[in-house]
Amino acid sequence: MTKINLDRYRGLRRVVDDTWINIHPIQRGGVLPPESREALISFGDGYSTCDLCIEGRVDLVKTPPILDFAGDVAKFLNMDEVRFTPGARGAKQAVFKSIAESGDTIVIDSLAHYTTYIAAEVNGLKIVEVPHGGYPEFRIKTEDYVAKIEEVRRKTGELPAAVLLTHVDYRYGNLADAADVGKIAGEYGVPYVLNAAYSAGVMPVDGKKLGVDFLICSGHKSWGASGPVGILATTYEFSGKTFRTSAIKGPWSGRAFLKKDVYLFGCPPVFGAPVATLMASFPHVVERVKHWDEEVEKIRWLVNELERIKDFHQLGERPRQHTLVTFETPSFHKVAKKHSRKGFFLYEELKKKKIAGVHAGMTKMIKLNSYGLTKEQLQKVADAFQDIARAYEVEVE
Amino acid sequence: MTKINLDRYRGLRRVVDDTWINIHPIQRGGVLPPESREALISFGDGYSTCDLCIEGRVDLVKTPPILDFAGDVAKFLNMDEVRFTPGARGAKQAVFKSIAESGDTIVIDSLAHYTTYIAAEVNGLKIVEVPHGGYPEFRIKTEDYVAKIEEVRRKTGELPAAVLLTHVDYRYGNLADAADVGKIAGEYGVPYVLNAAYSAGVMPVDGKKLGVDFLICSGHKSWGASGPVGILATTYEFSGKTFRTSAIKGPWSGRAFLKKDVYLFGCPPVFGAPVATLMASFPHVVERVKHWDEEVEKIRWLVNELERIKDFHQLGERPRQHTLVTFETPSFHKVAKKHSRKGFFLYEELKKKKIAGVHAGMTKMIKLNSYGLTKEQLQKVADAFQDIARAYEVEVE
Repeated sequence: MTKINLDRYRGLRRVVDDTWINIHPIQRGGVLPPESREALISFGDGYSTCDLCIEGRVDLVKTPPILDFAGDVAKFLNMDEVRFTPGARGAKQAVFKSIAESGDTIVIDSLAHYTTYIAAEVNGLKIVEVPHGGYPEFRIKTEDYVAKIEEVRRKTGELPAAVLLTHVDYRYGNLADAADVGKIAGEYGVPYVLNAAYSAGVMPVDGKKLGVDFLICSGHKSWGASGPVGILATTYEFSGKTFRTSAIKGPWSGRAFLKKDVYLFGCPPVFGAPVATLMASFPHVVERVKHWDEEVEKIRWLVNELERIKDFHQLGERPRQHTLVTFETPSFHKVAKKHSRKGFFLYEELKKKKIAGVHAGMTKMIKLNSYGLTKEQLQKVADAFQDIARAYEVEVE
Repeated sequence: MTKINLDRYRGLRRVVDDTWINIHPIQRGGVLPPESREALISFGDGYSTCDLCIEGRVDLVKTPPILDFAGDVAKFLNMDEVRFTPGARGAKQAVFKSIAESGDTIVIDSLAHYTTYIAAEVNGLKIVEVPHGGYPEFRIKTEDYVAKIEEVRRKTGELPAAVLLTHVDYRYGNLADAADVGKIAGEYGVPYVLNAAYSAGVMPVDGKKLGVDFLICSGHKSWGASGPVGILATTYEFSGKTFRTSAIKGPWSGRAFLKKDVYLFGCPPVFGAPVATLMASFPHVVERVKHWDEEVEKIRWLVNELERIKDFHQLGERPRQHTLVTFETPSFHKVAKKHSRKGFFLYEELKKKKIAGVHAGMTKMIKLNSYGLTKEQLQKVADAFQDIARAYEVEVE
């Protein structure tokens, strides 16, 4: 074996620890509450949730109470049946795989996460995109789902296999009108997939009220879980097909696996820390979604503070309905062009102030997420950006 | 929302902690070494490894050194390219999906893990099984791969899309002759998949020496990692196809995702604790595989001790080549039949002695794994079984 330098793996630590303020756009909803850190340590070993697995599937384990938990998550989301998946992307793969059996085209919003496109590609589904309204708000025109469904029908002679909407998109943090798409999908009788990776777990989401057939959530993105772990919730109408169990039989051995979910790797790979932390964070999550309005208020305040800096313009819908936000920041981009560290100057200035999460090297646009940060922390973030602006002679109003 | 009893999720702890001796067949190789527990805590939050993600894929992250790590794991396994996957099952899905493009039948061993069957089912692959020799050794007849490849060719006019061997099976812990199958696959020019979930990470595995085209490993099963995380290693010959990147394009938006691995969810869901602990455990793993002979010696000793109990017969190959072992135990099954707690008596007796991991309710056969336990701990295990035997008037020699 070629000599390997093992020293670089010793004493492995994350630089961004609790002494930092982290505004990383994809990380705020996945911060573990203290009780979940305890569970993480307790259930850290590989198959730690499988000590008393009788049925051979992680969602059916009774100790710890994963079976109860699956039911409770279904209630919380107002859906009928739940499975845990290797991330929201794993849920998307399972849904797309199952719907690919009943059609070859899917209508999606044009702000969908890349895993939506990849799930279509890997399952051989053609995509039709619902446009957004472009600069500066980039709102998805939900009413256009009608035109796109009609377009698919005209071209293929069939309705699309499903429509998918990204509830809150990862680029602008816009909150799309999920109920409107639910109404349209319902009228056409087309299965409706809602990607709630940035919404469920931080804000209230009621699947049936929104007319959703498949609700996809992300534990590590929005449920304070160590992941990767996702949630796939569906209705009784679709659960039989999507959660269909294995029918294969060993031709020589006769072996069969009648309990195993075919589209979820048999027993979905979420045992151990992922599902344990998802469970441990659940009481915290149930409580925190009630305080979503306070989070929205804080981000609106922060947007106001940051827009006091010359040429900082918030993109996406106004006023903010979500804590994930993008700014175009041409004034900082001008600074970067002349700076010896180019676009990295901002990242490094923030680092000095122990603020993490702004994409290193990026100054044309800045994306951040304020979720779960206190007003005091956000004041520090606002001060930091304003101080950096002044230091580089960018006007602050 | 229906009222949910949240109290059952508070203070969530695993019962089996460090004060127990755990002989669970699937858990021994996934116990985190202390340095990895530290990394687990540090990288516990959802996307903790993505603080400095420039390329948009977890295996390309440089801080922490995941990119280096992928290269080092490839060297360690003597393969060319590596990706991390949602468990060994995730690796299997990716391989089967990619090979399903070049054939419709796969030859597998009849002791394969259920996820092998499920991966075939979900990807529409027909399976042909290589028999084992039955009771009591259940050895896979690796030479029969020839006959099965020929059978596929005769029936379909084509060679199988791949052959798969389970290096060490989960039922009897037999170590199959992987080099023999590598030779056969090489002669036919059929891609060779080796499922090393129970071997790589605990014992030395050299992919090229065994003639392997796809090597599949399990981090939480055998690399001391908090999971779920798997490893898919392949050769330059196959990496382009198996790790092919996305080609889909948004028809309206023009969006494309040229860096994303199609068969691995784009960016495989192993960020955060899974890949961090896999990395942190790597120096430990590189060292421990050198001491495999000591582990084999210990299990042989334990087998000998347990077979002193009347009607305890080790199943699978003799002598042991692996620490996972199954016994048929009709004497204990007789006790169970008369016992008020039926098959649970054994589980409960062991629990009193703080020994965990024997399947609750099972007394006809007992499966356990001694990996990483000290001689003193194994002495306690042997004593416990012998004491329980005597307590129920089962003879001990």
